[in-house]
Amino acid sequence: MMHLGLFLLGTGSHVAGWRYPGAIDRFTDIEAVRKTCQLAEAGKFDFIFMGDNLHADVTTHPSYAARFEPMTMLANVAAVTSHIGLGATMSTTYSDPFTVARMFASLDFISGGRAAWNAVTTASPAASANFGTTHPAHSSRYERAEEFIDVVTGLWDCWEKDALVADRKSGIYIDEAKLHPLKHKGKFFDVEGPLNIPRSPQGRPVITQAGGSAPGRKLAARTADVVFSVVQDIDEARSAYTTVKQEVAEFGRSPDDVTFLPGVMPVVGRTDREAFEILSELQGYVGEKDALGLLSDRLGTDMSAYDLDGPVPDLQQADTYHSFSSVMLAKAKRENMTLRDLYNLVASARGHWVLCGSAETVATTLIEWFETRAADGFNIMPPYLYGGLTSFIEGVVPRLQEHGVFRSDYAGTTLRENLGLHEG
Amino acid sequence: MMHLGLFLLGTGSHVAGWRYPGAIDRFTDIEAVRKTCQLAEAGKFDFIFMGDNLHADVTTHPSYAARFEPMTMLANVAAVTSHIGLGATMSTTYSDPFTVARMFASLDFISGGRAAWNAVTTASPAASANFGTTHPAHSSRYERAEEFIDVVTGLWDCWEKDALVADRKSGIYIDEAKLHPLKHKGKFFDVEGPLNIPRSPQGRPVITQAGGSAPGRKLAARTADVVFSVVQDIDEARSAYTTVKQEVAEFGRSPDDVTFLPGVMPVVGRTDREAFEILSELQGYVGEKDALGLLSDRLGTDMSAYDLDGPVPDLQQADTYHSFSSVMLAKAKRENMTLRDLYNLVASARGHWVLCGSAETVATTLIEWFETRAADGFNIMPPYLYGGLTSFIEGVVPRLQEHGVFRSDYAGTTLRENLGLHEG
Repeated sequence: MMHLGLFLLGTGSHVAGWRYPGAIDRFTDIEAVRKTCQLAEAGKFDFIFMGDNLHADVTTHPSYAARFEPMTMLANVAAVTSHIGLGATMSTTYSDPFTVARMFASLDFISGGRAAWNAVTTASPAASANFGTTHPAHSSRYERAEEFIDVVTGLWDCWEKDALVADRKSGIYIDEAKLHPLKHKGKFFDVEGPLNIPRSPQGRPVITQAGGSAPGRKLAARTADVVFSVVQDIDEARSAYTTVKQEVAEFGRSPDDVTFLPGVMPVVGRTDREAFEILSELQGYVGEKDALGLLSDRLGTDMSAYDLDGPVPDLQQADTYHSFSSVMLAKAKRENMTLRDLYNLVASARGHWVLCGSAETVATTLIEWFETRAADGFNIMPPYLYGGLTSFIEGVVPRLQEHGVFRSDYAGTTLRENLGLHEG
Repeated sequence: MMHLGLFLLGTGSHVAGWRYPGAIDRFTDIEAVRKTCQLAEAGKFDFIFMGDNLHADVTTHPSYAARFEPMTMLANVAAVTSHIGLGATMSTTYSDPFTVARMFASLDFISGGRAAWNAVTTASPAASANFGTTHPAHSSRYERAEEFIDVVTGLWDCWEKDALVADRKSGIYIDEAKLHPLKHKGKFFDVEGPLNIPRSPQGRPVITQAGGSAPGRKLAARTADVVFSVVQDIDEARSAYTTVKQEVAEFGRSPDDVTFLPGVMPVVGRTDREAFEILSELQGYVGEKDALGLLSDRLGTDMSAYDLDGPVPDLQQADTYHSFSSVMLAKAKRENMTLRDLYNLVASARGHWVLCGSAETVATTLIEWFETRAADGFNIMPPYLYGGLTSFIEGVVPRLQEHGVFRSDYAGTTLRENLGLHEG
């Protein structure tokens, strides 16, 4: 069964999506967020996933600089949804494991077993200035992330399922034999435990990850339930799919234990032509300065001095930055892009795959990817809201359902069940 | 106008409240929490306030060791309430200011201006073991808290009210002239800012505090909007009230800028006699071991070796621990209590004032306190739920309303408005 996530990124994944006529234009409007999530639930999506950053990123994606904190937002959305999973980013570099473990266990209780933690190491160095520190090197961030995740899962395991007895007659509230401290002592963390919240409905909330570097993929292969990926075409996706599943197996896990979901920004029209017109209208809203800012951010290099209509330069690439940069630069080389072509691509979906066409075209393409093992499903990134989402739900989802690759209703009550994952 | 908060503490403030027939017996049941908060809103309470601790405190108040994380819980409650304020504790010792500022601004948006931050330094040393550190000394905690709160309010002020313009025509999303970095450099924190969320509906969410020590009172006098207090009788309350208002004035603030709310556990019966029977039944559910554990915690001294029926010993008191200890020990001395008397008191309300009687008795007493400047209102601590709350709302609240000291409906939409505080 194909799995679908809704990737919530500001008012839409397209950097200028908020300028589209009728689109929602701010990401601090809880009614708009709730309605978006309810649409995704009506479309039987597996989950909503909310990315995060830890500084006001005014230059690269403005609506993303003025946004909800993810845990409070999703805890609120939990009250107006019943089946859709609720995934949020919390940083392993700028948080501590006791707090992270506790918040996701709490969200898991609040939502009846629908919480997912997207463990990221925080790529952007700008975050560090808000936390009074310098941004740790890539390798150090990943070393810390490995230990961080072990502490979090360890804390989730401190309470056995039936440790809370609340036996009115005997007066025993907690069966202390079933409550275990963690007593973790490591390089980065000393954490005694146990958590001050019992084992949550999923046992362990779902863990998602998106790291594309070698240490990132290793971390995901060992610890993730869902892997988000950045790819630009089906061959790249198949290759990444195979690699991820192999790496998972190398850790003694079943390849089915990990769900591989590339990100995709679908632009759906009544015809292929109309879809391209929508995308073209969206691109028309992008200022050159904004686009270059975003491009510089995604490539990790200041691009403002380059000629927009010249070729994409051969950049000295830091392979430890976003996996976006390598994927995009490879595509630019393959397709002889100018810098303007590249920024148009980046403005759309920040380096993710853009799939433009009629509902039939989009559905057929996604089915081909799914059936030829390029993906277990997709992280859907609507360019703007609500239209960029409703056109997908009304046009594409029914075609996926008719083809028998996507659910017509939720089979389980927890996110783990709906993702087809083993018990947490 | 009198102000009322509902102090949510596990399944009730009485340590054995969960054993009361029909009471809710776990604090990870979101439906029960929502219903409780909706009851308080129907009773026109100003706010719900959720205390917090950062370790599984199994020995002193068991239902409190198995509980929601406050921010996720209140963000969810926001979806099923419309007027009641939502206050939560976050620690200035075990959190960082960027995250705290952001979470409360987010909750403030989510709730339409109903968020309140209870800034605490975390009294219990046990928390430190979950954060890989040693518990800082009292003076150091308060020094950090002073700076922490300044950073948080500074971050709340980074965005001017109309900095987010989202002008579709010009493509300007943020008016950067109205967005100011914080550039704080201090002893404990370096924080660049701005926050990645605009100015929230209240501007600054309400700040509450409960510190009873001299540095705690100083911090509250300078920075708090609401002060919670531990008192055992009206004379103590009047004296504390006068002190707090004086200290506030010494910082150049108006005494009306701070709302003084003692905690009280009301036990309401149809008659005074029935109320005492309810309390007596509750006390009958307390195990001796649990009570001594709680007593040791509140006094900061291991009491297990003392004779329960002997006098309360003259304890070497750390004046920097809970203000509970000094208040309770003073009462014990005044009233010649045995240790058993004292633990009965502590088991009820953890050292807070217990007010037992008919609705008439309870209302009359609260009105006397309010009208003679012993309190601006009360932080109500129901011994168990829901009955311990509904008896108050059905019996006491209408009498307060008839007397004209308590609202019949909410006058404002934000918590600041309902508390009668100046704009944040």
